[in-house]
Amino acid sequence: MTGIDDLPVRDELRGKSPYGAPQLDVPVRLNTNENPYPLPEPLVERITERVREAARHLNRYPDRDAVELRTRLAEYLTKTAGHEVGLENVWAANGSNEVIQQLLQTFGGPGRTAIGFEPSYSMHGLISRGTGTGWISGPRNEDFTIDLAAAERAIAEHRPDVVFITTPNNPTGNAVPPETVLALYEAAQSAKPSMVVVDEAYIEFSHGDSLLRLLEGRPHLVVSRTMSKAFGAAGLRLGYLAAHPAVVDAVQLVRLPYHLSAVTQATALAALEHTDTLLGYVEQLKTERDRLVAELRAIGYEVTESDANFVQFGRFEDAHATWQKILDRGVLVRDNGVPGRLRVTAGTPAENDAFLDAVRDLKKEQEQSA
Amino acid sequence: MTGIDDLPVRDELRGKSPYGAPQLDVPVRLNTNENPYPLPEPLVERITERVREAARHLNRYPDRDAVELRTRLAEYLTKTAGHEVGLENVWAANGSNEVIQQLLQTFGGPGRTAIGFEPSYSMHGLISRGTGTGWISGPRNEDFTIDLAAAERAIAEHRPDVVFITTPNNPTGNAVPPETVLALYEAAQSAKPSMVVVDEAYIEFSHGDSLLRLLEGRPHLVVSRTMSKAFGAAGLRLGYLAAHPAVVDAVQLVRLPYHLSAVTQATALAALEHTDTLLGYVEQLKTERDRLVAELRAIGYEVTESDANFVQFGRFEDAHATWQKILDRGVLVRDNGVPGRLRVTAGTPAENDAFLDAVRDLKKEQEQSA
Repeated sequence: MTGIDDLPVRDELRGKSPYGAPQLDVPVRLNTNENPYPLPEPLVERITERVREAARHLNRYPDRDAVELRTRLAEYLTKTAGHEVGLENVWAANGSNEVIQQLLQTFGGPGRTAIGFEPSYSMHGLISRGTGTGWISGPRNEDFTIDLAAAERAIAEHRPDVVFITTPNNPTGNAVPPETVLALYEAAQSAKPSMVVVDEAYIEFSHGDSLLRLLEGRPHLVVSRTMSKAFGAAGLRLGYLAAHPAVVDAVQLVRLPYHLSAVTQATALAALEHTDTLLGYVEQLKTERDRLVAELRAIGYEVTESDANFVQFGRFEDAHATWQKILDRGVLVRDNGVPGRLRVTAGTPAENDAFLDAVRDLKKEQEQSA
Repeated sequence: MTGIDDLPVRDELRGKSPYGAPQLDVPVRLNTNENPYPLPEPLVERITERVREAARHLNRYPDRDAVELRTRLAEYLTKTAGHEVGLENVWAANGSNEVIQQLLQTFGGPGRTAIGFEPSYSMHGLISRGTGTGWISGPRNEDFTIDLAAAERAIAEHRPDVVFITTPNNPTGNAVPPETVLALYEAAQSAKPSMVVVDEAYIEFSHGDSLLRLLEGRPHLVVSRTMSKAFGAAGLRLGYLAAHPAVVDAVQLVRLPYHLSAVTQATALAALEHTDTLLGYVEQLKTERDRLVAELRAIGYEVTESDANFVQFGRFEDAHATWQKILDRGVLVRDNGVPGRLRVTAGTPAENDAFLDAVRDLKKEQEQSA
């Protein structure tokens, strides 16, 4: 039987497995940082209306430049970030993964390198490899903060073309202080100059502010965003970036023409009309996230500060065995491969209760057997 | 003012422009091979229903493997191609451009090459460059058929990793004989072995059959397809491929996780329920295409055989000047850069009449001034 290794695939793909969390049918799924709140019914109806209209013109190619959508995204950013952002500053694609892929095709690629400070969002490294960009794994402190001096040294030594800074960081949950981002931007400029991509997928859940305000006067800075989390629209696959207009022009040299379908644009536009409602859910999730942090600490776990809609907790001698024991109790969390830690998404109050019951039960079992 | 060239973009992108036909507001647009028939209203309603249901779960990630959609696509292929195709043979992405990009990331990429026989679909070369794959422009005969001996020599000389064969070919319109495809497949296997991608974007409009029946026993053969043309759904961005299951496994190593949104999957599934109606439009378009060929020849133009929903015609001393003169008469056709030729999409009977009136008028004007 012919298998992958019998095909002339690229050498670096041999023996690899596709990326992705296990999709298991479990009562409580807190493993992929999805928003637990379904879209409100009035928004579902608005999506339906907008898609009906788009479907009537579906025989035609979509707006290649997604002008209306980018304009509305710019308005959302301007409203929430206290910094004026225009159409010319915004670009959108099928999920922030495609945004990152386009950035790496433009500024990375063969003969170039990108750095991230790990553990962080693993797709940065995977998409780097997928675009032929060399990947450099930069360091973090024991407490998962960025070790600025070590990071600056790594940038000076490797002179990467692209620097990824994820804030709030995934899977650890902690935000990166703005002064650290600024220092890394400066380090990256004096080393090369290189592009600095600040991945703000979870920024709406943060105690702190977006770094959009740093864009002014920094043409090599890019802020990437998504509608998957705060907008409760993981199924929509809509990522976007804000940057200097020249960056937006540059990624259009590598984007596939008509990459964003008319139904995606219509659905995203509908969701952007309901921003206030959706951000209301974000407030509920922040409260629940803070409750998870407090309760997990009260139970006796070590918990990383969280500015996201998820919480990293530990420590475990064998994180994967613990993941399985929580799963046996009907709750799916995530083992991201960080030694001794697991990650749990903030769900509804009932889901979080189920999770907390499961880990309390687990703790009791361990204490009894100790 | 900072521009693209002030950014650290890849050298090969400097001075380039984004790909894409001019999007002009003209009464008759016959320039991008769109299907002129809007989706029938019952299908619009079915899309609306399916998207409403998908929107209710939009907070969750979509089915990463698009199992239902791939199953329905496989059924469509089985029904129309007289060759059994299963879920395990089919993969789908955001437009056939993304299918091709994933194939090149898997089987092409840095240090590897791809060949196409030009003029052909220009995105093959552009996506090759975008994935770091070296691009080889193979030859065609004067009449735009593939010169088999020359093509075999080019494959033997360059030993490409990926061979593109577009049939029916775009922008010329002619189909490639199955025996030519078979010979090129054999040539590609003895040279390397390499993957052969048969791009059948326009196959439903062909007088001949799909090459899906050649897949059996040829694990290095891939047939790529799209719902943009025959399904009248250019706005949907749904491309797919059929191949050996190992190929489907292999592209999953490079696909971005959750690349196909829930609304895209829902809309495509609705369209696949209305296949018979949509293929009825295809029959009308084939009749109109044949009429365009006959009328253009009657007017005195040189016309390339067409198995697609468009027709290449000429010759013109200055194709671009002629393009402008047709545009001045309210009809937008396409100048694909083929010397002395233009391409017109088969539209509705009224649109085609408008186009034929315009070129008759032009011909008369030229004869008077000669």
